[in-house]
Amino acid sequence: MMSYISNADNLCWLMPELDRVIRRLHRVVGNAVVDDDRFIIVGNGSTQIFHALLYALSSPDQPEPISVVAAALSTRHIRRRRSSCDRGCINGQGRRSASIRWSLHRGGDFAQQPRWLDSRNRAGHDAMLFTFSKATGHAGSRIGWAIVKDKAIAAKMVKFIELSSIGVSKESQLRAVKILGVIDDDCRNPELEDVNFFEYGRRIMSDRWEKLRRVVIKTNGVFNLPEYPQHNCKFTGEYTHATPAFAWLRCKEGLNCEELLREKCKIMTRGGTSFGGESTYTRVNMLSSDAEFTLCWKGCLRSRTHQWEIEFMLMSTLCVIN
Amino acid sequence: MMSYISNADNLCWLMPELDRVIRRLHRVVGNAVVDDDRFIIVGNGSTQIFHALLYALSSPDQPEPISVVAAALSTRHIRRRRSSCDRGCINGQGRRSASIRWSLHRGGDFAQQPRWLDSRNRAGHDAMLFTFSKATGHAGSRIGWAIVKDKAIAAKMVKFIELSSIGVSKESQLRAVKILGVIDDDCRNPELEDVNFFEYGRRIMSDRWEKLRRVVIKTNGVFNLPEYPQHNCKFTGEYTHATPAFAWLRCKEGLNCEELLREKCKIMTRGGTSFGGESTYTRVNMLSSDAEFTLCWKGCLRSRTHQWEIEFMLMSTLCVIN
Repeated sequence: MMSYISNADNLCWLMPELDRVIRRLHRVVGNAVVDDDRFIIVGNGSTQIFHALLYALSSPDQPEPISVVAAALSTRHIRRRRSSCDRGCINGQGRRSASIRWSLHRGGDFAQQPRWLDSRNRAGHDAMLFTFSKATGHAGSRIGWAIVKDKAIAAKMVKFIELSSIGVSKESQLRAVKILGVIDDDCRNPELEDVNFFEYGRRIMSDRWEKLRRVVIKTNGVFNLPEYPQHNCKFTGEYTHATPAFAWLRCKEGLNCEELLREKCKIMTRGGTSFGGESTYTRVNMLSSDAEFTLCWKGCLRSRTHQWEIEFMLMSTLCVIN
Repeated sequence: MMSYISNADNLCWLMPELDRVIRRLHRVVGNAVVDDDRFIIVGNGSTQIFHALLYALSSPDQPEPISVVAAALSTRHIRRRRSSCDRGCINGQGRRSASIRWSLHRGGDFAQQPRWLDSRNRAGHDAMLFTFSKATGHAGSRIGWAIVKDKAIAAKMVKFIELSSIGVSKESQLRAVKILGVIDDDCRNPELEDVNFFEYGRRIMSDRWEKLRRVVIKTNGVFNLPEYPQHNCKFTGEYTHATPAFAWLRCKEGLNCEELLREKCKIMTRGGTSFGGESTYTRVNMLSSDAEFTLCWKGCLRSRTHQWEIEFMLMSTLCVIN
């Protein structure tokens, strides 16, 4: 527990117990290929893993900065990082921008999938990024990981993390081992099929999305939500709609969606402009505790506003700023 | 414990308990100014703090890389980092290299002072770097901190750590709070004056240095050690010699000190060339457990080599490679 390195014989110095539990969990969820020839790289959150991957995919000895293209909507943090890259943090050959683009895109998808139940296909990409914070909510532990196919890329990522922080907190690794291990055990226990961690999360999120959609319908087109097609989930064995951690709410043309929700409904969201998008969009955080939801529900029933505003206020615990 | 931030009102998001215990400990040791107008910045080890300080002292929007000059002997890690900087990691105005040089120099001094007893003067520099690993040996926790005078520099360091890892493990912060708190309490307890953490460390290190010096004298000039003048230590109130964590051993001109110790005495050290110095020098790690020391002592008594080689082998637990 006291030294920098847990496993000097391994390519990455992470705790062997953490390597094992990450592979076990991906196998039981069925969302990513974790065969023995894939490398697990751990970093201080997926943030550091993201930097390490950019470094590994670029060629730092080139004179010109590399172009980084994010296919998905970028957050303020991502844009600041990209801005740093443009100033010379990551240098590389322009022709590699395609692979960088792909990596960013997949990384964003996985990291923002809190319940990991996007298990329609067992993904086997060259590099896939995951994070403890989005899996269980333990953001403060700063544990992220990548599953990497190519040994040379994996080795460069490890070197980057060594040079920037000489590894990752052992205390956090140990806690992640314990928590992910309990989740994995429960998922493999047939008696807990209906109450395991992911099933519990799926029920809560389905219920919240259903409520949000009901409220949105009552606004008569002032607000809209994207429709997600049903897919067969390998984990549950059912056809289900996706229920992401964040809902992208869109309002009528010419309206500022974030301002409208804040001023009319006292609901804090993150506007589309924060992500490089339009102000008609806003990102609604669908994750909050049930206790907060109930508290808000009772408070909002005493409110005297238009019906759809009341309805939206009922949802406000789903919408705290993130 | 689960969220990224512990104190949104503070300039740095570290746990308020950690901020308090760091200030208390520096006050009881008397080695650094930690008045309320100084900022405590926490990072993933002093490694990340070092990068954050370089970033904060430079101007990243300049076209040319900044020159970084390390006045102290540099390790392989430091040289690799400097090499990264030269390739464009940190850009800035050349005229700032003097301040960067100063920061590196002081940072190295403090971080390598494991018992913190260089308390001849209560240092009050613009920025001072410390690390949990060198204070108590908990390298795996990845906790480092800086005491920073200027608010703008402190804010830039915090921004750097946010963008590179979104903060520092809460589990590690909590453990550091507990361990540093116990050490601080003991130091303030008059009944534990002779057995507190720093006093215990001082006795062990004095004993080891005394043994090493006795052995070196017996080599009749084959090996030499630097002499340290006596200073008044504010913590103990005594005049004492410095007893650093690493001894810089020098052998006769034309000899390779590291090779000589490895081949003749089976002692692993780190040669001067690893630090940009000469091969006549080698760095001896003076930190190991008493159990290892005793084990080696018994084993070496059965050895049949020249007297000074036996003596050196008795010391070999002080000399494991670091």
